[in-house]
Amino acid sequence: MVRPLLITHGMGIGPEVTARALLAQPPGRPAVLLGRPETAQAAADAVGLPLRPIASLSEAVAGVSLMAPPNPQQEATEVAAIRFAAERCLAGEGAALVTGPIHKKRLADQGFTHNGHTDFLGALCGAEPVMAFVGGDLRVALVTMHMPLMSVGAALTVEGIAHIVQTSHAALVGDLGLPSPRIAVCGLNPHAGEGGLLGSEEITTIGPACDALRAAGLDVVGPVSAETAFLEAQHKRIDLVVAMYHDQGLAPLKAVDFGRSVNWTLGLPMIRTSVDHGTADHLVGTGAADDASMRAALRLATTILARRAR
Amino acid sequence: MVRPLLITHGMGIGPEVTARALLAQPPGRPAVLLGRPETAQAAADAVGLPLRPIASLSEAVAGVSLMAPPNPQQEATEVAAIRFAAERCLAGEGAALVTGPIHKKRLADQGFTHNGHTDFLGALCGAEPVMAFVGGDLRVALVTMHMPLMSVGAALTVEGIAHIVQTSHAALVGDLGLPSPRIAVCGLNPHAGEGGLLGSEEITTIGPACDALRAAGLDVVGPVSAETAFLEAQHKRIDLVVAMYHDQGLAPLKAVDFGRSVNWTLGLPMIRTSVDHGTADHLVGTGAADDASMRAALRLATTILARRAR
Repeated sequence: MVRPLLITHGMGIGPEVTARALLAQPPGRPAVLLGRPETAQAAADAVGLPLRPIASLSEAVAGVSLMAPPNPQQEATEVAAIRFAAERCLAGEGAALVTGPIHKKRLADQGFTHNGHTDFLGALCGAEPVMAFVGGDLRVALVTMHMPLMSVGAALTVEGIAHIVQTSHAALVGDLGLPSPRIAVCGLNPHAGEGGLLGSEEITTIGPACDALRAAGLDVVGPVSAETAFLEAQHKRIDLVVAMYHDQGLAPLKAVDFGRSVNWTLGLPMIRTSVDHGTADHLVGTGAADDASMRAALRLATTILARRAR
Repeated sequence: MVRPLLITHGMGIGPEVTARALLAQPPGRPAVLLGRPETAQAAADAVGLPLRPIASLSEAVAGVSLMAPPNPQQEATEVAAIRFAAERCLAGEGAALVTGPIHKKRLADQGFTHNGHTDFLGALCGAEPVMAFVGGDLRVALVTMHMPLMSVGAALTVEGIAHIVQTSHAALVGDLGLPSPRIAVCGLNPHAGEGGLLGSEEITTIGPACDALRAAGLDVVGPVSAETAFLEAQHKRIDLVVAMYHDQGLAPLKAVDFGRSVNWTLGLPMIRTSVDHGTADHLVGTGAADDASMRAALRLATTILARRAR
């Protein structure tokens, strides 16, 4: 039996972009949509996507099935869907997890204590996940994520940076099949600190992390200025850029991706891709929501599965 | 008499990219190359660019003339060239200043006390210049520039941000002829602080600056997250992005510009454009230096001159 792709449609525009993406680009193996059955059915009906209701993953066959997640903890259905899908992937019954957007604040009001999918999945798996993005020709992994910018300097450690780079390297080799990926590690400061003139984190932390990684045999360039890293990546001379903070990685990515980028979680004992956008509640039902990121998320999960099956 | 374009060839790869750019794309009005005559002549000879030696700007005619700058202060020739060119533009004898790269550290060793061209020109003109960049379809102005990233928060002021936005607005209207430019102002923190959850500078400083600018009638969007700003700019819904710090503005620009971007100084009583790259000393004489940025700098100066002449 071919293990199904498990897809959580999430909230806001999630159900409609998921239905449209699945219609435009069937994943090629059984897919199971997990979430609120009435919401998912309405979104599927709106675009003419056939859904087959099932009560257990073992019933999944070709095409897209629809299943309400078991919910013994009485949590929000969207959270129960993520939990169930992740547990089934860990148990080897799901092939990969692809997620639609959730609204962190609305879920927090219902008792959800995690800072988003990545954090929740890390806790479920007992792992330290790495948040990465793939968009256009760029791949980016982030060392820090959702924190005030002025706190980033103090949050950098040699070990933390090394973990991000090693996890990224393993994913590029194992999941994308790059034989010897080259990774650029950005500095924190302009011009990567210009030899200490414009900041010291490159000397105290980022540089030593890069040196240790090179000593361990990884093809690591850095610390380099962010603009150099992205220019080199655009010229295909770099396979992945490690950014020290959110905007350093995502602003360049969004400048080139035109809505096509995927949030890819590395370092989990499962494959997980996601849309890179939020719930965009104001677009729900208008037909204006773009399903490009969900299509790209489905495509990346399928690509990794094909690679791992070799 | 048509006022000449004044071009300082600068250091490192400056002379050769200037010669190649002038050969590929004559500026359409007299151009005067200022710097070291023997260096400029060698670079011109290497590509077959005819140069006409002159001893005074009044001798400039069609084509490219070559002049050694007067140097009463006995400073580095490259600095004397910038000073002379700027003074002649201020006196109305030069049409615009286009500059090649200089090596700050090498000039500092010879007594140059300014932190680059922009700072030097601001001092010569008694103005507070704004550093902006044009690359691909993006235009970016920077609120802070060469300082450690962890110092940026404390450097932001309502007045400083307002000055950058107002100067940028004036340049878009006056120099590029945009009737009602829309400017996006980035937040400092991820997701522009997410309502104070991820930092407070948007609430204390950037937001109040945007409010004041809107109250003054400017079409200002923000504070917005950097990735939104650049995505919108790529979709042509934003004419210029104001970034709070170096990498927030330049990493996205470099991700899309492929070496074609121009450093454009706003807020001076003269037109000044420049290459956006350094001296790249290791490329001198190899033929590998790309003259795309110098060509773009010449083109932007010419475009602004044509616009102002209307």
